[in-house]
Amino acid sequence: MGELRKDPILGRWVIIATERSKRPDSFVQHDNDYVDDKGKCPFCPGKESMTPPEIYSLRASNTSPNGPGWKVRVVPNKFPACYIEAGLNKKGFGLHDMMTNFGAHEVIIETPDHNREIKDQTIDEISDVIRVLQQRVEDLHRDERFRYILIFKNKGKNAGASLAHPHHQIIGLPITAKRVREELKGSQAYFKLKERCIFCDLIEQEKSWGERIIYENDDFVSFCPYASRFPFESWILPKEHSIDFYSQKAKEKVGSLADMLKKILVKYNKILKNPEYNYIVHSAPNRFPRSGYWHTIEQDFHWHIELFPKLTMVAGFEWGSGFYINPMAPEIAAKYLREEKY
Amino acid sequence: MGELRKDPILGRWVIIATERSKRPDSFVQHDNDYVDDKGKCPFCPGKESMTPPEIYSLRASNTSPNGPGWKVRVVPNKFPACYIEAGLNKKGFGLHDMMTNFGAHEVIIETPDHNREIKDQTIDEISDVIRVLQQRVEDLHRDERFRYILIFKNKGKNAGASLAHPHHQIIGLPITAKRVREELKGSQAYFKLKERCIFCDLIEQEKSWGERIIYENDDFVSFCPYASRFPFESWILPKEHSIDFYSQKAKEKVGSLADMLKKILVKYNKILKNPEYNYIVHSAPNRFPRSGYWHTIEQDFHWHIELFPKLTMVAGFEWGSGFYINPMAPEIAAKYLREEKY
Repeated sequence: MGELRKDPILGRWVIIATERSKRPDSFVQHDNDYVDDKGKCPFCPGKESMTPPEIYSLRASNTSPNGPGWKVRVVPNKFPACYIEAGLNKKGFGLHDMMTNFGAHEVIIETPDHNREIKDQTIDEISDVIRVLQQRVEDLHRDERFRYILIFKNKGKNAGASLAHPHHQIIGLPITAKRVREELKGSQAYFKLKERCIFCDLIEQEKSWGERIIYENDDFVSFCPYASRFPFESWILPKEHSIDFYSQKAKEKVGSLADMLKKILVKYNKILKNPEYNYIVHSAPNRFPRSGYWHTIEQDFHWHIELFPKLTMVAGFEWGSGFYINPMAPEIAAKYLREEKY
Repeated sequence: MGELRKDPILGRWVIIATERSKRPDSFVQHDNDYVDDKGKCPFCPGKESMTPPEIYSLRASNTSPNGPGWKVRVVPNKFPACYIEAGLNKKGFGLHDMMTNFGAHEVIIETPDHNREIKDQTIDEISDVIRVLQQRVEDLHRDERFRYILIFKNKGKNAGASLAHPHHQIIGLPITAKRVREELKGSQAYFKLKERCIFCDLIEQEKSWGERIIYENDDFVSFCPYASRFPFESWILPKEHSIDFYSQKAKEKVGSLADMLKKILVKYNKILKNPEYNYIVHSAPNRFPRSGYWHTIEQDFHWHIELFPKLTMVAGFEWGSGFYINPMAPEIAAKYLREEKY
């Protein structure tokens, strides 16, 4: 079942997913791992038995779970990185700390249509996907053992997807992810200094300067961040201070977010010729008395989405330094994205 | 010339290398970027004029700089991420902080032979490369503006190399790299608790358990770390406490390190069929009164090399969480590596 292990020097956790273990040879050729062929796709309607039983779905009222008739379908990942059944147990061996591989790993199949990427979906369709993602986060948060729920999307083989059929993934973790903890600490430090949310200040600053702004609608703003790691990296933030992705349920907010996501992905598609990409949602961790983050979090954190097309490679320098080399100034990327009409 | 920019939330620095800037189209097709063809290789003997003038070389006494006759040759990177000439200046714009793109970016051409990878080189040849790397770090450390010198190797196109001819790279930075700072902090915290070096303790623990040990010679030990991020990730550490890669100049130590590097890379080659890989050297930062790290660093840090074959992909989950999913338990990887005879 594998386990979670902590690096004793850095405190960084790693999921050792032994059930995914393979012989060394199988790492050498991994060209066959990506399923693009509709005939073999387990996410297409009529193939529901190829996935584990569904957790949730939006489906026509006269249809039954695990059969056709759905619009959005949530299933457990067939090759999960972590398991609810593992239970949450912790142990130490000398310098080393481990936890059982407790967690949740779900797949959100966005559409019955094998080729209908977000850029092709309607605002209503994308809104449905967002609402399902919100429902899943809210549901998982009920279990206090989950400290953090991460929503992410890998689109394309080189962006880490193993299936072409449009889908998001959710991983629920028993630890607040290191990257999120760093953001929480950074924004908390700023709040201590200024008594203001750093993300709210960033939005103000970027809007007043304008050169890195991509697009703005009633509820959301997007820009290429000043210290972008990757060419065409884009962030989406709610304009009104808000710490939780899942709390923004009003129909018009969901519609605004759908509009924003679609706009950016259509722009990526036009400028970068249907690129592979990743995006991730950074929302607040699960809050309960022991979690240690919620004294000021309501004021200092601000949820957002980080998107990056897969265009450059991360190599020795980045792994060794934690720095990134970005060959595209974000002001230039933003200009391309802003001016691409849609 | 580009600039260094700091993320206001995470404090992470990014190099915006605008001289590498390209039109969006050029990101789409980057298949032509990798030079494998010997005929076009600027690192082969006789092509010395295709690189910037050499900084240093080991060459036959009757030969002149920038002509053939060298064994190891150091040149500035033709497309550098940073520049000595940029000078070190710092500025702020509202929430944003930047520095001029000050730094050094050098290429160490390991051998005149286009195809002679480390796995094929003799111990004497590898020792020469190590000595040249040590010389370069020591020389760059003389300039106090350099806070950190990172040595790394990218082997193969997917590991980020742009030329096939065997080479290392060095980047000198005006800031201690984030990843190194995290290691320094982690090992310092351990030292405060135990008054012992965590790396020395790790070596003891791994040696007494044995299951993650790969190989050991007189001066170095290698193992697959307990919380390996990647399949077959391996660390090389000097057995005797030492904080600086460049201070280990004794002929037998350099020879031991050459033996260790070659052993691991031959084993990688056999088990993983000539994989692409990265490795990085984590040595102490440049130490001078203002640097802030040297009150206990002589006791708490321990230089080492981290190697990882390029076998898996980093995707949304890893970018979003800072966690890694590793499908190969390090104990199993170590068994393969240990038992592969050489």
